[in-house]
Amino acid sequence: MSSIEQLATPALLLDLDVLERNLARMAERADALGVRLRPHAKTHKCPQVADLQRKNGAAGITVSTLREAEVFADHGFDDITWAFPVILSRVDEALALARRIDLGLLIDSRVALEALAARHDGSGSLRVWLKVDCGYHRAGMAPDSAELVALATDVAATVGIEFAGILTHSGHAYDAADRGAIRAVAEQERTVMVEAAARIRAAGVDVPDVSVGSTPAMSAVESLDGVTEARPGNYAFFDHMQCVLGSCEPVDVAVSVLTSVVSRMPDHSVVDAGALAMSKDPGPENGAGMGPVYDEERPGHLHPSLQLASVSQEHGIVNRPLAVGTRLRIMPNHSCLTVACFDEYHVVRGGTVVDRWKIWRGR
Amino acid sequence: MSSIEQLATPALLLDLDVLERNLARMAERADALGVRLRPHAKTHKCPQVADLQRKNGAAGITVSTLREAEVFADHGFDDITWAFPVILSRVDEALALARRIDLGLLIDSRVALEALAARHDGSGSLRVWLKVDCGYHRAGMAPDSAELVALATDVAATVGIEFAGILTHSGHAYDAADRGAIRAVAEQERTVMVEAAARIRAAGVDVPDVSVGSTPAMSAVESLDGVTEARPGNYAFFDHMQCVLGSCEPVDVAVSVLTSVVSRMPDHSVVDAGALAMSKDPGPENGAGMGPVYDEERPGHLHPSLQLASVSQEHGIVNRPLAVGTRLRIMPNHSCLTVACFDEYHVVRGGTVVDRWKIWRGR
Repeated sequence: MSSIEQLATPALLLDLDVLERNLARMAERADALGVRLRPHAKTHKCPQVADLQRKNGAAGITVSTLREAEVFADHGFDDITWAFPVILSRVDEALALARRIDLGLLIDSRVALEALAARHDGSGSLRVWLKVDCGYHRAGMAPDSAELVALATDVAATVGIEFAGILTHSGHAYDAADRGAIRAVAEQERTVMVEAAARIRAAGVDVPDVSVGSTPAMSAVESLDGVTEARPGNYAFFDHMQCVLGSCEPVDVAVSVLTSVVSRMPDHSVVDAGALAMSKDPGPENGAGMGPVYDEERPGHLHPSLQLASVSQEHGIVNRPLAVGTRLRIMPNHSCLTVACFDEYHVVRGGTVVDRWKIWRGR
Repeated sequence: MSSIEQLATPALLLDLDVLERNLARMAERADALGVRLRPHAKTHKCPQVADLQRKNGAAGITVSTLREAEVFADHGFDDITWAFPVILSRVDEALALARRIDLGLLIDSRVALEALAARHDGSGSLRVWLKVDCGYHRAGMAPDSAELVALATDVAATVGIEFAGILTHSGHAYDAADRGAIRAVAEQERTVMVEAAARIRAAGVDVPDVSVGSTPAMSAVESLDGVTEARPGNYAFFDHMQCVLGSCEPVDVAVSVLTSVVSRMPDHSVVDAGALAMSKDPGPENGAGMGPVYDEERPGHLHPSLQLASVSQEHGIVNRPLAVGTRLRIMPNHSCLTVACFDEYHVVRGGTVVDRWKIWRGR
């Protein structure tokens, strides 16, 4: 136990009070919407956070890389979905993991199913999801295509593989102009998925689960009828992007980067939080450069004019000349990428550092 | 020893033939210009690469973080400059390191000198550089200021601290429009530093070293008269930005990201190299999105039309529909930031993987 004041910088702070509140709220929301919660652990990459999510009713977790899946398996998580189209050169690693835990894999092509079927010896527990494009158009099968029904039929018929259902991600919710538009994206996601499931079922194939997920959509959606599972991730921490989208308020953002002024120039300061601490995520278009700065006088509120204006590799530029040694807290534009810059969280309650939790990076 | 074809993706490849050629060329260039070379290891974060630089005549190394300094000290490097304005909350760590190796620290404020002097017990070898602003205006003291001469005088007079000299970084070379403009920046850097050194010397203070450095400036400069040391870093690997600046050709870029197509969409492909593999560095303005793609038919050349168009956390978007399983090599926009995404290099010669070298991330 020590004070934040004593921490060397740069440091990634995780506010445990805020985290606990965020997890409890999303658990209530999933309950109210009648869906199971399978949080995306790519945001935090941390077994301690996933454990809190489990205590808040999470039914399994989602990951974005095989390395994350392995780390969480090593920490006692036995029901994991790798929600990224399976990488053909990683199939053997994935199948090995499926012999240790209940593993869900994601595909949107026949090539991927054939690669799985060819290498799978039938041992272990392997569920295969079909990725459906609900309108984001990044990846996934067209929801009204004959290929979707045909591939679902073939997955279900493959010996040793269980057809898990259909899965999508409404990433276009991040491009929505306002809350109404986000709500419309969420409703579109639901409708598209429910209809796609109905088409597959009409072909005589059972669709056990219909999985959706993005933090903005989960914050705005009014109904998830016909959906069984949601996979938001960012909601655990939130960030500046989510504030601008209206998913949260600044007081709800659980992670921040503690930084120090190292150089005072005539019109700006240099701090020790550059691209290697914040990432180069540009954040929202109407945003505050590479990250807003918290107002130390008003905990949980942003400073009205200070901002991290730009970053290079290890240098950050704050838009005002401040005394060398001044300490600031910066809100990440995108917490998932900022977290991936660090090896550990300094876990805080109020001004006290109560723990250090390892961040398991890697792929 | 295995083939690149057998590697799981995404993977960071380091071409040893290209690296060795880059290191030899820069060593020759420094020799011809009459300066010692103290390469910036923030680009590679790898003792094996630094060892090759030492074999190519490097006199010590430069780092951007204290963690990097500690790692290289642990690997037998005993002459290191931490070329970032000293972080006040890290002074004790820095002084502890100065008891193990010859450590150079950088300051541009009286506050920082006072912090060092107050905590330093005089043991070990501590050199202090003054950072001078040669026109980039990111950090450093004004070269024509009375404060510069006064602080140099006080550093030189501080018991237990050795005044190392003055140091600058011509980061504005990256904004230059063409080779002539880069050459002008390099000459400005040299002139400013030589004149600043003369002013300090005129006050009766010895200035042992005058240190400059950036890869574009080193590639274009015609004379470094009056300069004693250069600290380029990126030249070891180069990247897309350096190609556009004319520091190198595509065939000179030593690192690339090997990636696989995981999803084929109507107008694009999804690959497993997103922001967590490439970084979100936007690269040159007239660039190729988040990274050009190599032409597998013509080794060392870029594909005329394929590019990594955009990245999100773990997804990359390539601008053409390609078969699932297709493997591509992407040139980083900014190799320093791409390297910082990975834990190891797969070291290759031709199509053969000859070694794996650890990348020491952290701060």
